[in-house]
Amino acid sequence: MKNILIIGAGRSASALIHYILEQAKTNGWFVTVADNDPDLAKKKVGDHPNGRATWLDVTKPNDRREIIERNDVVVSLTPAHLHLLIAEDCVKCRKHLVTASYVSSNLYNLKDKVEANRLIFMGEMGLDPGIDHMSAKKTIDELREKGAKITSFSSYAGGLIAPESDDNPWNYKITWNPRNVVLAGQGTAQYLEDNQYRYIPYQRLFRLYKMINVPQYGEFEAYANRDSLLYREIYGLEDIPNILRATLRKPGFCDGWNALVRLGLTDNSFPIIDSENLTYHQLTEAFLSKGNEDLSTEERLAKMLRVELDSDVMQKLKWLGLFDHKKINLSQASPARILQQLIEEKWKIRPEDKDMIVMQHEFEYEMDGRKKALSSTMVMKGQDGTATAMSSLVGLPVGIFVKLVMLGKITQPGVQIPVQQSVYLPVLEELETFGVVFHDVETDLGPV
Amino acid sequence: MKNILIIGAGRSASALIHYILEQAKTNGWFVTVADNDPDLAKKKVGDHPNGRATWLDVTKPNDRREIIERNDVVVSLTPAHLHLLIAEDCVKCRKHLVTASYVSSNLYNLKDKVEANRLIFMGEMGLDPGIDHMSAKKTIDELREKGAKITSFSSYAGGLIAPESDDNPWNYKITWNPRNVVLAGQGTAQYLEDNQYRYIPYQRLFRLYKMINVPQYGEFEAYANRDSLLYREIYGLEDIPNILRATLRKPGFCDGWNALVRLGLTDNSFPIIDSENLTYHQLTEAFLSKGNEDLSTEERLAKMLRVELDSDVMQKLKWLGLFDHKKINLSQASPARILQQLIEEKWKIRPEDKDMIVMQHEFEYEMDGRKKALSSTMVMKGQDGTATAMSSLVGLPVGIFVKLVMLGKITQPGVQIPVQQSVYLPVLEELETFGVVFHDVETDLGPV
Repeated sequence: MKNILIIGAGRSASALIHYILEQAKTNGWFVTVADNDPDLAKKKVGDHPNGRATWLDVTKPNDRREIIERNDVVVSLTPAHLHLLIAEDCVKCRKHLVTASYVSSNLYNLKDKVEANRLIFMGEMGLDPGIDHMSAKKTIDELREKGAKITSFSSYAGGLIAPESDDNPWNYKITWNPRNVVLAGQGTAQYLEDNQYRYIPYQRLFRLYKMINVPQYGEFEAYANRDSLLYREIYGLEDIPNILRATLRKPGFCDGWNALVRLGLTDNSFPIIDSENLTYHQLTEAFLSKGNEDLSTEERLAKMLRVELDSDVMQKLKWLGLFDHKKINLSQASPARILQQLIEEKWKIRPEDKDMIVMQHEFEYEMDGRKKALSSTMVMKGQDGTATAMSSLVGLPVGIFVKLVMLGKITQPGVQIPVQQSVYLPVLEELETFGVVFHDVETDLGPV
Repeated sequence: MKNILIIGAGRSASALIHYILEQAKTNGWFVTVADNDPDLAKKKVGDHPNGRATWLDVTKPNDRREIIERNDVVVSLTPAHLHLLIAEDCVKCRKHLVTASYVSSNLYNLKDKVEANRLIFMGEMGLDPGIDHMSAKKTIDELREKGAKITSFSSYAGGLIAPESDDNPWNYKITWNPRNVVLAGQGTAQYLEDNQYRYIPYQRLFRLYKMINVPQYGEFEAYANRDSLLYREIYGLEDIPNILRATLRKPGFCDGWNALVRLGLTDNSFPIIDSENLTYHQLTEAFLSKGNEDLSTEERLAKMLRVELDSDVMQKLKWLGLFDHKKINLSQASPARILQQLIEEKWKIRPEDKDMIVMQHEFEYEMDGRKKALSSTMVMKGQDGTATAMSSLVGLPVGIFVKLVMLGKITQPGVQIPVQQSVYLPVLEELETFGVVFHDVETDLGPV
């Protein structure tokens, strides 16, 4: 095997392309980076002797098949709905496939063909999903190995801003898809507590956060993810009485965001008529009920939210620009789209900013008649606003895995996610050299 | 013109088919009723000498084109996404088209071709949309005709249960698509009040209802629709300072429904894992936060909703079955889907029940130096649980319009909705013979 194809050269591809090109130099491989925007691909490849950039419209079957045919391992970093097109061609052309995205049921349906052709289709090989699977599964397997009975598993992760670059009242900046930031949490969060299902609907989600302590970094708020229960089977924890996956934010964030939800600014289902002619102030005003016309918009919103005018929540909303007499300038935009425009500007990461990924798994287990707690924490900061920890931690696991496949060190065929020891051990081991280190703290909680 | 094609023989088609068959007898026409379910079509046509039933899968282009080709006027009562297929064939085969559904932008895009072929494509020709357009526009045109300046227009409509058949604590039964009953109001309601935009997000919608008096029928709750602002242009009310469209329910309904929204039972975006193994009681329990384990589920829910255990709201929820130890028996179902199953059973209309349509338009206007109010109300009851007012009022306007086209009394080509005098006058006139009568009450509000 000599040739690697990377489809997609966007924000999350930088660290991956850099890593793979270095490996290509060492091992005599050749890397093709294909994107709809050939200039973007060119910029990422530079004049590296082992790489070339090319234009590709993934929706064109002939072009797609032709370029896949000429490579051995294919990495797809395209939007999720395009993975299947690429995957089907990989089956036909008998090529391995790696992605950082969730594995859809359509992709799982290719299982038999993938296995029959002895191909490796690895999905969820990024940060979250990706590093979360590998690090959690490693600890779970280790605990089981020594005879522990796991009674509780909670996994927390957040893409945050490092303390030294944290200079706004929300203590948050955007390091991933801003649309997903706005729509985060919509649906019904589901988890297990004391063997009881717990559901939280969206409109109560940002009120029902819990506080988590991260050693050396202090307190964080954690709100529940929708998908906690799906991880029981994947991790072999079918009978566990407590399982929770949650998202981390700095203290105060959830109260502020809850105010935006309550006001109505996160709805994405219907356009605001005439939105291009409104100011943010008019938008906010329109979401308040009639009455109290003698009060200012800010005073009326504070009243609706039942907070003080000088509260942290109101300061956050004011800083975000909800009361600005500035035109929205977006036509037929939903409230969520308008909010996205606001946060894209206000929460923009600056060139000198460092982002920070925090991931913490918390286990409780019983062993030798004792109850014990184990907390396993990874914190990683980015270099700057471009070389973010987010982009490294999404791209590096993919890159390392591709290398392992190219070197013939991973051969197990099938449609997979990285929960097997033969995969997570070498990937986590190499990730450590990039500073991805989990620190464990064990506590004895007394007799069972 | 001799031949009429009705595509779709479902619940809303009965009154239409009955009416058109009678007209066919009088005028020597022939009616074809086509449905995916030929038995359903047969049942509706019976052995009427002027009608036949036939099987049709609308998604099959050849079958579709062939049957359209053989007719002069086509009525489409199919699900909304199939109208366009039928409309495109009607253009190609040069046939007129009538539907009771909202006119999509795709359908409007056929405008030029429809006009060039001198075809009549009439949409929104049912009850709501339909009778609401015609009755409101008639009054608007009359007020303008006599020199009035309209300052406020509110339009209320509800598909309800008649008082004599009203025997449950919600004072509501289902007479239309139960899925839409569950999802009603999701999005952002938008209207105009004193020249100010007002927006209400879903999670506050059922708290912010207002009370409306309907002469002889008493008080109703009205919650705002999403689309009020869209009607300004359609009705020629671009500069009106107050416009609202809202849905009517019996008093107490909105507080009860708001409790279901708050609990989280109307979310349709994500399946409840393991839903087939849960009871309704367990589902409700899971939506409550931890704590107060000494209290019953009912007590804890009452506490969360801040109502008394014996309040009307709690009685409604209990009656609906939220605390029943009965299996849900739906696999991978969203909360909304589960709630739909509950209301389909509990709010089922019985064979002997009468439904009741209430529609009320309220205008304020200035004329000759006086401020005046005009309220225009239509109430209609069904005969029984099958021959509902809902099905009559959706089907009859379509039928009457088809007759007018067949008789050559309507000839204006184009993609339209019924807001022109030449359309609404004859349709409303004939609807009166079926009991669709609006009663007007005028009030003088004093000098301007």
